[in-house]
Amino acid sequence: MNTTLRYLHHPSSQPCRAGLQFMLENNIPFEEEIIDITSDINERPDFREKYNPTGQVPILVDGDFTIWESAAIAYYLSEKFNCPAHWWGRTTEERGHIQQFMNWYAYTLRFGGGVFHWTIFAPMIYGEDKDFSAEIKRGRFLLYEALDVLETYWFKGNNQFVCGDAISFADLAASQDLASHDAGRTIPDAVWAKHPKTHAWFKRVMARPHAKAVSGWIYENVAKVLDEGVRFEFKRKTAVLKGSEVKSGHNHGISYAGDDDSYLKQAES
Amino acid sequence: MNTTLRYLHHPSSQPCRAGLQFMLENNIPFEEEIIDITSDINERPDFREKYNPTGQVPILVDGDFTIWESAAIAYYLSEKFNCPAHWWGRTTEERGHIQQFMNWYAYTLRFGGGVFHWTIFAPMIYGEDKDFSAEIKRGRFLLYEALDVLETYWFKGNNQFVCGDAISFADLAASQDLASHDAGRTIPDAVWAKHPKTHAWFKRVMARPHAKAVSGWIYENVAKVLDEGVRFEFKRKTAVLKGSEVKSGHNHGISYAGDDDSYLKQAES
Repeated sequence: MNTTLRYLHHPSSQPCRAGLQFMLENNIPFEEEIIDITSDINERPDFREKYNPTGQVPILVDGDFTIWESAAIAYYLSEKFNCPAHWWGRTTEERGHIQQFMNWYAYTLRFGGGVFHWTIFAPMIYGEDKDFSAEIKRGRFLLYEALDVLETYWFKGNNQFVCGDAISFADLAASQDLASHDAGRTIPDAVWAKHPKTHAWFKRVMARPHAKAVSGWIYENVAKVLDEGVRFEFKRKTAVLKGSEVKSGHNHGISYAGDDDSYLKQAES
Repeated sequence: MNTTLRYLHHPSSQPCRAGLQFMLENNIPFEEEIIDITSDINERPDFREKYNPTGQVPILVDGDFTIWESAAIAYYLSEKFNCPAHWWGRTTEERGHIQQFMNWYAYTLRFGGGVFHWTIFAPMIYGEDKDFSAEIKRGRFLLYEALDVLETYWFKGNNQFVCGDAISFADLAASQDLASHDAGRTIPDAVWAKHPKTHAWFKRVMARPHAKAVSGWIYENVAKVLDEGVRFEFKRKTAVLKGSEVKSGHNHGISYAGDDDSYLKQAES
């Protein structure tokens, strides 16, 4: 007897959306639970103890088995539900290159997501008076470098998808990262114009019905922030992974530290 | 007819050592080519064009097929050489958790490697007069958080290896990262003492003959730096991935930027 899969996620999260899109594309049955990451729910010790010590979503609960990290969830589900091989590669070489992409993506494009986070959400989380220019600057380096490598390396062969002629999880991960930038208008037109293959691919993947379905929330809500001056109330005061934190740790429940060294002092005492 | 595998690497690199150990543990035949990353060889456009646009090692060349990213190389080789299943998981669940570990590791423990890089090598690369305290501080956050998650989550079940009762590539990746810290003495005794399961596991994995073989270089050469004041001459002036760069991009050929915004200005022009 199969248990019902529970998918814990939030539509503001790029990796959550990629995992969600994967399940929708493959007709995998699941129940979704929105984890309101504007609240402090995933800062709480009981949440971290039960699900994920980093407090991050997405999280998949399959009976007694819990797994987190968007890519790992999709990898697990792909095998469990015998999904079409193109999602993780049809040949040894393709499987290797998809792994290569996901490893490369994790420290480049994913961390460029900091430009979006520190521009759009961080002032509401940590205070409108704080200066996030160092974080944003770091994120721009990462983002622009990643776009250059996409354009000149991954799309060198004029392939339609990042790892070849078929869509894979790599496309979902990368396009959902860029969807946040698109919603937040954090990639200048001049930068897009220098990356025409990447831009065409992004539009191609985002035209898929499930891509639109999973990214509706972020486009709608970020437009409210940018065009109507709407502010969301964040009870949460810690960063979830956004990759370009300069003065604090990642995601282990440490508030944006500024010049606060107390975590380090305690760790070394 | 099989071609001879070429493995391009350098023993100062944690991921290079993990990939090398994987090949030795599995008796995979290969020819090694040391890429002297103290030189500017992997800054050169022809190297990046031919092998890897990020300039990073390791790189595996298998005839016409080239693959980089240490984890992807080991994944590819594991399938090609039909290596024992424990290296990437024996069950659907174990395979999922190893993918989870590798994704988690990529933005936590791997980036904590910045403590080592910015303490030991960076002054020789960028200048002894430069102040890397911000980079080192960021790295300490990442490193200590990662050690906490290893101790309380990955080793919660008193398992002998990070993903269960059998060694996997996750163990090689994580232990070789810690080997650099151990060689560089960048984890204080007080921090190790708070992570006894992690410390015991580290010593267990490093006791394997192939772990010792691949990490000999780093222990010997860092000891010369720390104990004899030896300085290596670095012609290279760009960072390879060290994860805690604060003021520049990662690895795309951009020199340590300090307050230099020229890359960003050019990208947005």
